Amino acid sequence: MRIMGVDPGLTRCGLGVVELAIRVPNFVGVEVVRTSNLDQLPGRLQQLDYAFTALLDKYQPEVIAVERVFSQHNVRSAMDTASASAVVMLAAAKRGIPVAVYTPTEVKAAVSGNGRADKAQVTSMVTRILKLDEPPKPADAADALALAICHAWRGIGQMRVAKAIAAQRSALS
Amino acid sequence: MRIMGVDPGLTRCGLGVVELAIRVPNFVGVEVVRTSNLDQLPGRLQQLDYAFTALLDKYQPEVIAVERVFSQHNVRSAMDTASASAVVMLAAAKRGIPVAVYTPTEVKAAVSGNGRADKAQVTSMVTRILKLDEPPKPADAADALALAICHAWRGIGQMRVAKAIAAQRSALS
Repeated sequence: MRIMGVDPGLTRCGLGVVELAIRVPNFVGVEVVRTSNLDQLPGRLQQLDYAFTALLDKYQPEVIAVERVFSQHNVRSAMDTASASAVVMLAAAKRGIPVAVYTPTEVKAAVSGNGRADKAQVTSMVTRILKLDEPPKPADAADALALAICHAWRGIGQMRVAKAIAAQRSALS
Repeated sequence: MRIMGVDPGLTRCGLGVVELAIRVPNFVGVEVVRTSNLDQLPGRLQQLDYAFTALLDKYQPEVIAVERVFSQHNVRSAMDTASASAVVMLAAAKRGIPVAVYTPTEVKAAVSGNGRADKAQVTSMVTRILKLDEPPKPADAADALALAICHAWRGIGQMRVAKAIAAQRSALS
């Protein structure tokens, strides 16, 4: 199963792709889509949509794991992140690709065993888990790979449970 | 000039359309797109995108005025509103329709002369300005019409100024 992790953002949107073989995630690719904060929001969303759609074509993920957007210290940047996340989710929905959402704490705990791990620890664990020659840069790239690993390890069981519940519901209705 | 005002939201997204004739905005239509909060976010964004795109076809606006999303009391709902706003802006950008953004205070001041007007006052002024037989319902519909009126009265001069500055910049570069 091919999993794409997405660390949403307008200035930098990180994407990391892994292929899961018998519970072992293997590195496939990592990308960062950038848009300029000199451009207006509608144009930035269109640029992100265009680039992200091209990367869906390139990597053909079967599932997308996106970081849940929380209110950050900077409200303006939280709104920008929510907008970028919406573009990613809409593009996934239009292609029928399921989307799983994880909190930063869930992602950190999945890759490092510690929900309060810092960025350096997450980057270091991602590098070791995927046996990379050097750490992925920038941090958005490492975060996106961490999301894909998180889904590889915890998400697939959860999605099976969700599907089983939905199937039982429709059988009962 | 045909102006569509959008009060972004996931549970209810209000759209109001006016036709501007020599500074007098005339009522064209009002719509509310709804999505269910029982559905997952990617599916809701897709439903909104589908419905909004159909309404762009129906009304053919030349410009779209969207309410600026602020952090609200409820952070979760602010994130949902930012997501809905992103879907609207992306659809507009894809069709090359310019987007103007106004704060709630600017909209209230434009239609009622008071930036702190309450919902009832805004609805009452919209009903009078557009000579409607009865107040538009729900509140999202009145807010969307207020956004379109706001752009009719204050935005068009501002957009001319922005275009002139952009033209001067490109002439100098």
